Amino acid sequence: MSTTISPLAPKKYPKMPEIAGVRIATAEAGIKYKNRTDLLAMVFDEGTTAAGVFTRSKCPSAPVDFCRQNLPGGKARVLVVNSGNANAFTGKKGRETTRMTAEAAAGAAGCGTGEVFLASTGVIGEPLDASRFSHLLSGLVKEAAADRWTEAAKAIMTTDTYPKVATATARIGDAEVTINGISKGAGMIAPDMATMLSFVATDAAIDAPVLQALLSKGVGSTFNAVTVDSDTSTSDTLMLFATGAAASRGAPRISDPADPRLGQFRRALNRVLKSLALQVVRDGEGARKQVEVTVTGAKSARSAKRIALGIANSPLVKTAVAGEDANWGRVVMAVGKSGEPADRDRLSIWFGDNRLAFEGERDPDYSEAAASEYMKRDEIIIRADIGLGRGKATVWTCDLTKEYVAINGDYRS
Amino acid sequence: MSTTISPLAPKKYPKMPEIAGVRIATAEAGIKYKNRTDLLAMVFDEGTTAAGVFTRSKCPSAPVDFCRQNLPGGKARVLVVNSGNANAFTGKKGRETTRMTAEAAAGAAGCGTGEVFLASTGVIGEPLDASRFSHLLSGLVKEAAADRWTEAAKAIMTTDTYPKVATATARIGDAEVTINGISKGAGMIAPDMATMLSFVATDAAIDAPVLQALLSKGVGSTFNAVTVDSDTSTSDTLMLFATGAAASRGAPRISDPADPRLGQFRRALNRVLKSLALQVVRDGEGARKQVEVTVTGAKSARSAKRIALGIANSPLVKTAVAGEDANWGRVVMAVGKSGEPADRDRLSIWFGDNRLAFEGERDPDYSEAAASEYMKRDEIIIRADIGLGRGKATVWTCDLTKEYVAINGDYRS
Repeated sequence: MSTTISPLAPKKYPKMPEIAGVRIATAEAGIKYKNRTDLLAMVFDEGTTAAGVFTRSKCPSAPVDFCRQNLPGGKARVLVVNSGNANAFTGKKGRETTRMTAEAAAGAAGCGTGEVFLASTGVIGEPLDASRFSHLLSGLVKEAAADRWTEAAKAIMTTDTYPKVATATARIGDAEVTINGISKGAGMIAPDMATMLSFVATDAAIDAPVLQALLSKGVGSTFNAVTVDSDTSTSDTLMLFATGAAASRGAPRISDPADPRLGQFRRALNRVLKSLALQVVRDGEGARKQVEVTVTGAKSARSAKRIALGIANSPLVKTAVAGEDANWGRVVMAVGKSGEPADRDRLSIWFGDNRLAFEGERDPDYSEAAASEYMKRDEIIIRADIGLGRGKATVWTCDLTKEYVAINGDYRS
Repeated sequence: MSTTISPLAPKKYPKMPEIAGVRIATAEAGIKYKNRTDLLAMVFDEGTTAAGVFTRSKCPSAPVDFCRQNLPGGKARVLVVNSGNANAFTGKKGRETTRMTAEAAAGAAGCGTGEVFLASTGVIGEPLDASRFSHLLSGLVKEAAADRWTEAAKAIMTTDTYPKVATATARIGDAEVTINGISKGAGMIAPDMATMLSFVATDAAIDAPVLQALLSKGVGSTFNAVTVDSDTSTSDTLMLFATGAAASRGAPRISDPADPRLGQFRRALNRVLKSLALQVVRDGEGARKQVEVTVTGAKSARSAKRIALGIANSPLVKTAVAGEDANWGRVVMAVGKSGEPADRDRLSIWFGDNRLAFEGERDPDYSEAAASEYMKRDEIIIRADIGLGRGKATVWTCDLTKEYVAINGDYRS
């Protein structure tokens, strides 16, 4: 595990409030790590609804398959997450592990296996033995308590250098509801890939299809707008749970995604998702700088996002940022290679407020000194205007440093 | 410029024969580099046909635009290449530079500007002043000689650590013809992107449309099957010239792409293209290992190539190779993220002869020790069998090392 905390870690962490209807417990199961927690159980009151989005990988992990199978039911009573082993590419053994874990969790929580959700993060291809931790679930469910959100975030870390939490409140009708979330990001000891897990819960009373609509929409400009190294994990999982406990305080139950009372909640949810997603980027393997890439003037929003991701995933752009080099020619390259409509002679590029290129040429007022000074910052903003339309998108990434290569070039053993 | 020669450089270089109808001269124009050649003129006898393939970037360099404009004419009398400045993203000034250079070259060679071809490689976005070198062209054309292929390869280098040449012969009808080629690859001082240039010439007598068909087909499994860092240059240019001088020794003129007498020539051409392309990979920025990725059993050849490029472009796969880590789980990830049809439970993976994964699980006979030993080699072969069809493709890349980050994170100045 990395011993150096990312220089982009939060200066202070929020005190995480409780979410009525959610109880949490963690344990040291010793699946791979020693002297730290690696098992999380999150227990939900009856009536909790669930939504989820998962990796688009064609080689998803066994827990992702399991969650996808249960999601149409829309109900959750218990979530079990382990770190240290991804239970991915583990064939029949992997399915057996999810079955055994789900049965143990269902027995402990007094529910059916269809209301259990599972996630695993860590090395790929090594069988995960459920008997290493399934016997602990009964005790965890019993002792679970509401005030352990930061402990939950710690238990799911791999080579993350800090736990990732976010919280927000919103009014639905006359009641205030709370949204809490945790995530883990990019970095492995073993090492593997940027396995991303995130779990968000609220005490709002929201039907599962509405919850799913909120999550599927919210993810586009948050988790699906960040990239560390363009490598999609087998295990990416983002789930949102709504206990409905706020109904007892007068929060109305929401059954229609178009319900106007959802406005504030939607914005608060998206703030939580964005905060968690940016924390993942800021703890990207070897990251020393956060990079925000905004593309304007593209043919469409979809085109803008593809160009922005092309810039954010370019190793040459990311190494230039690491080297504090205002090398805007590489942004030209990345726009050009994206395959999206672009006209070289209308393209303009900014680093922060420094316009470096204007309509297909180096800006006449270009100042190398000012641009170089800007590149020394922790947070770099790159903007490219394509000059063709009104499509706009923003994505976030981190720089590509020698530490990224060192972290990922180490032996797994 | 890098002072360390790539450990993957050729142990010995071929003695490059002459190509009848081609004369070469180089000069030190001081465009950016000091104490080395940076200007190349290649002069062709009347009747030389030309073919070319160029970057698909939407932001191509001015010379690429210029070549595209002349290519339909199918005739070449002179090629001018400079290193040190790419003349890309230089707007009207860039077009003015290509116009002035072409006029000077045409005047020197006694031809029209429609028979001139141009290429530039180096930093992007800085105006290239044609007056720095156009006055040299008349002298170069006069003193050009046939025995300077290796000098030509040296003049077009940027941070390449060695010149790249290849040669082959083939029979067409009863006559032996020769094919010579040079290329330059990945590496910049200034630094920029993996700008790739390659020029191939033969004394065979082949009509331009046939030459174009040969080149467009040959590039698929050679230059379009290599990647250093997935970043497509604004300047990629590959041209093939046929002087027809071998006609005087009885070589028949070929006017039909389906002419059966082209068989041996096609294979020889593809060998030259593949040799030059692999030399580019083996001199990739910071490269210490060559990686060959073969995908079999995909739905189609196109699908196989996309999966293979997904593996070859994955930073996590490339850093694992750099770290001599047999981390096959990352190959699973790369297959899964490619978006192409794949079935996790049919996927098998080899590193060399070591089968690490079989039908969706770690191979029961997996040996970490044997796989780790294999990873110490200079040339690593990764094979993934998708288990769905008969589609097959092979691509080549290099590892991703700390040196890549160092080279590309340096200031341009």
